[in-house]
Amino acid sequence: MLNHYSADLNCDMGESFGAFRIGNDEAILPFVSAANIACGFHAGDPTVMKKTVRLAMNRGVAIGAHPGLPDLQGFGRREMAISAEEAYDMVVYQIGALAAFVKAEGGRMQHVKPHGALYNMAAVNKGLATAIAEAVYRVDPGLILYGLSGSELILAGEALGLQVANEVFADRTYQQDGTLTSRRAANALITDHRLAIAQVIRMIKEGLVLSEQGTLVKIKADTVCIHGDGSSAAAFAKGIHAAFQEEGITLSLFNNKDFTANNSAE
Amino acid sequence: MLNHYSADLNCDMGESFGAFRIGNDEAILPFVSAANIACGFHAGDPTVMKKTVRLAMNRGVAIGAHPGLPDLQGFGRREMAISAEEAYDMVVYQIGALAAFVKAEGGRMQHVKPHGALYNMAAVNKGLATAIAEAVYRVDPGLILYGLSGSELILAGEALGLQVANEVFADRTYQQDGTLTSRRAANALITDHRLAIAQVIRMIKEGLVLSEQGTLVKIKADTVCIHGDGSSAAAFAKGIHAAFQEEGITLSLFNNKDFTANNSAE
Amino acid sequence: MLNHYSADLNCDMGESFGAFRIGNDEAILPFVSAANIACGFHAGDPTVMKKTVRLAMNRGVAIGAHPGLPDLQGFGRREMAISAEEAYDMVVYQIGALAAFVKAEGGRMQHVKPHGALYNMAAVNKGLATAIAEAVYRVDPGLILYGLSGSELILAGEALGLQVANEVFADRTYQQDGTLTSRRAANALITDHRLAIAQVIRMIKEGLVLSEQGTLVKIKADTVCIHGDGSSAAAFAKGIHAAFQEEGITLSLFNNKDFTANNSAE
Amino acid sequence: MLNHYSADLNCDMGESFGAFRIGNDEAILPFVSAANIACGFHAGDPTVMKKTVRLAMNRGVAIGAHPGLPDLQGFGRREMAISAEEAYDMVVYQIGALAAFVKAEGGRMQHVKPHGALYNMAAVNKGLATAIAEAVYRVDPGLILYGLSGSELILAGEALGLQVANEVFADRTYQQDGTLTSRRAANALITDHRLAIAQVIRMIKEGLVLSEQGTLVKIKADTVCIHGDGSSAAAFAKGIHAAFQEEGITLSLFNNKDFTANNSAE
Repeated sequence: MLNHYSADLNCDMGESFGAFRIGNDEAILPFVSAANIACGFHAGDPTVMKKTVRLAMNRGVAIGAHPGLPDLQGFGRREMAISAEEAYDMVVYQIGALAAFVKAEGGRMQHVKPHGALYNMAAVNKGLATAIAEAVYRVDPGLILYGLSGSELILAGEALGLQVANEVFADRTYQQDGTLTSRRAANALITDHRLAIAQVIRMIKEGLVLSEQGTLVKIKADTVCIHGDGSSAAAFAKGIHAAFQEEGITLSLFNNKDFTANNSAE
Repeated sequence: MLNHYSADLNCDMGESFGAFRIGNDEAILPFVSAANIACGFHAGDPTVMKKTVRLAMNRGVAIGAHPGLPDLQGFGRREMAISAEEAYDMVVYQIGALAAFVKAEGGRMQHVKPHGALYNMAAVNKGLATAIAEAVYRVDPGLILYGLSGSELILAGEALGLQVANEVFADRTYQQDGTLTSRRAANALITDHRLAIAQVIRMIKEGLVLSEQGTLVKIKADTVCIHGDGSSAAAFAKGIHAAFQEEGITLSLFNNKDFTANNSAE
Repeated sequence: MLNHYSADLNCDMGESFGAFRIGNDEAILPFVSAANIACGFHAGDPTVMKKTVRLAMNRGVAIGAHPGLPDLQGFGRREMAISAEEAYDMVVYQIGALAAFVKAEGGRMQHVKPHGALYNMAAVNKGLATAIAEAVYRVDPGLILYGLSGSELILAGEALGLQVANEVFADRTYQQDGTLTSRRAANALITDHRLAIAQVIRMIKEGLVLSEQGTLVKIKADTVCIHGDGSSAAAFAKGIHAAFQEEGITLSLFNNKDFTANNSAE
Repeated sequence: MLNHYSADLNCDMGESFGAFRIGNDEAILPFVSAANIACGFHAGDPTVMKKTVRLAMNRGVAIGAHPGLPDLQGFGRREMAISAEEAYDMVVYQIGALAAFVKAEGGRMQHVKPHGALYNMAAVNKGLATAIAEAVYRVDPGLILYGLSGSELILAGEALGLQVANEVFADRTYQQDGTLTSRRAANALITDHRLAIAQVIRMIKEGLVLSEQGTLVKIKADTVCIHGDGSSAAAFAKGIHAAFQEEGITLSLFNNKDFTANNSAE
């Protein structure tokens, strides 16, 4: 078929910790195809991880590990000067911890997506990117590595022969060099849901994004990140899910039908 | 063969944390058949875990996860009023974290032995014992569960169909009901290496231990715990290893030849 | 004056941690006379502590340290087998940490109230109670020690010459021996706001509480704990504050006029 | 007297954590005038802090808080992208925690010296330097701020009116711009004790240091940092202490006679 499009919708989940509650996983799950589950370093705890794995499996949503920096207080958002070896070690550890819950429930892990500052550092630092890709590969070469579209992390994954997923953001603006506008800039965020959805559709169908400088920039959109917190998160998830249906975009990652076939969202 | 005896010698390892160093793993490894590796909750960190897995594999020593309570400051030795669900969750998490390092190195995990207060609580609390045994079983039913000889944890493992290893202690005295003398008692420890070794040999060969009350008590000794810290730890490990050879006791756990065949100790 | 009554209303505050939000401090502060601020072990972090101190000072609400067990994941609610020395040390540490924020803002700390499992253990364990009281006394003998009415902690404080505040609970039922009904019991909580308020008024005015067994039990009510979480917390705080006014109960702790004089609640 | 010289010798202490032991405080204390005591974030725990305060007071050694980044695993040595507000908050918290132990023992805190990556960042980042100086000032304007000689932290302290102590290192080489040679460089460390001591004496007496480029560079040396770990730490401490006596350098910080008068070292 000439005009078949597909893309994955992923969302960070399982970010509660003990008595501390974050997010609204149950409201978002019906509309996404992949859940990135926090692994206890920047968020999440063993009990939360188990429950989130169960929730995702019940919905047929693909499960990924979402390893972060060991900084619960900073939610993994503060860059730390870690070595490549430390990055490798903390990613192996966190993938394994989540994998055990998935295995105990009879499921299978699909992917790994680094969180926050670890994600951002891996997007530009080749040494860290390679270490993280190796961690994924050595634990399970069948795992898919999610990273910022076109980033060092994607390149490192491809170099090792991992399947990768180029990630784009629905609610972030882009620069003419294809990078995200810094969160510190005034126009970093797209708050109008319709504009955000339109940007996503264009990235998927045309492989283009309109930069803040007014030029069209090439971008690869295998998976779209949507945010699970905030009062309008569920509404936005529902909206983008509906737009996918209207536009004939299949909610799936490549041919990983086995992970998403049971997705019961409607 | 009429008089064939075998027993496992296990030791807790990988207890360093960041810049904090504990133990003398390299000196002990030549003399033991199983390493219980800390998993980051009461001791150990991802980098230490990786290195300890490598050390154990290089020596052909069987690898086990050594999950503990989330109490680094207390080294997992302070009892905490955790629920059975929390016990299950923290054991699944920690087994998984270590398993990823073992898998990344191309190895295979042999066993799980809870640490410190978690071990002690699981010895007498049926609810916790069952939760821990289930955690082991659901992550991998081929894992061997180590627990205090004859304890609730051993019973829980057997009830689930897990292979279990009844653990005895070389340097601890026993009561006439088969329990360990409390560490708070003056005579809890056997500090004379010859006496400790003699007790171990008797437990293995005769299935008996002389209690503090002077009576002989039945005890099952599948595996012997030796301690890795303290200035004489390596000397004791060497001594008990030599005594096994003199007494014709094969250093192995049951028929798990695949784990111990490569043990290059001499 | 014959019929002058007064009592303190206290509430736990500053329980957020990093990106994790708990409680509704700003909505509760107008109705209480004392804030027990978490100190980073079971909840709270340095930034949250600073902000909560500022909020309380702006409202003229007395500030207390609310030290807990080092168990963020369990919110300090899981009993831990700590020694008396460890209890002393963790309380000194946490009082000091909060005191520095109070001092930096030009304020003065009024009291100390242990949290959760530390509070419960100190209510019945004389050794822990004495250690905690000594910690308070040695850091500042002018601090008031809050504890369960009539408990070991109150006795320990009095023995050292500390001013103490016997605490009662608005929404908990009592047994005929004066203890709280266990939270595990079905009738542990009083969910009807009017009944809870009536119980409080009686405890303050008559020094009596109707036990679950139907007998009237003597109880000393210097301070009343109200809970800051839950959707109806602010409504309940407002209600009990209004009841105090109607009943002519002055919202204050003893003669600590300097702490509550500026309370601008209305 | 024309040729009177004095300088402070300081050493990081109290870096053990729970069962994890670091350093050799008792062997070093007789030879130094100031102890920088870890406050629980990068090292130290409440029990260790109390014991170290007591050891220092028994020796008449001045006590300082040694606040670090919240990174126990990295020993506070990994730079983190913290905000100025977070730096302020974590320093207030840690000073307060240690101050409570000092107060409980009837002592007085003399100084504050940031640790590791926090120290290094504060040396060059004016925003962080100012935040840390403000934290010290607001908790107690009588505290002395220790920082890298001539660094942003020293300037920030002076700008607020704090007494400062310009710190030099005995065992580190310097560049011609007065900065320390990076630890990554081959010649960063001076391992010959005699050379290290000679460098210190020259810095104190002449206010000069011979740079790696062979030029003499001006440097202010109020206090000399010596390291407490490593097998030769105590020997070096003894050696530099003896050199001070031979060279007629009084072991004291400025005129803080009250802190060092009782130093019983010999």
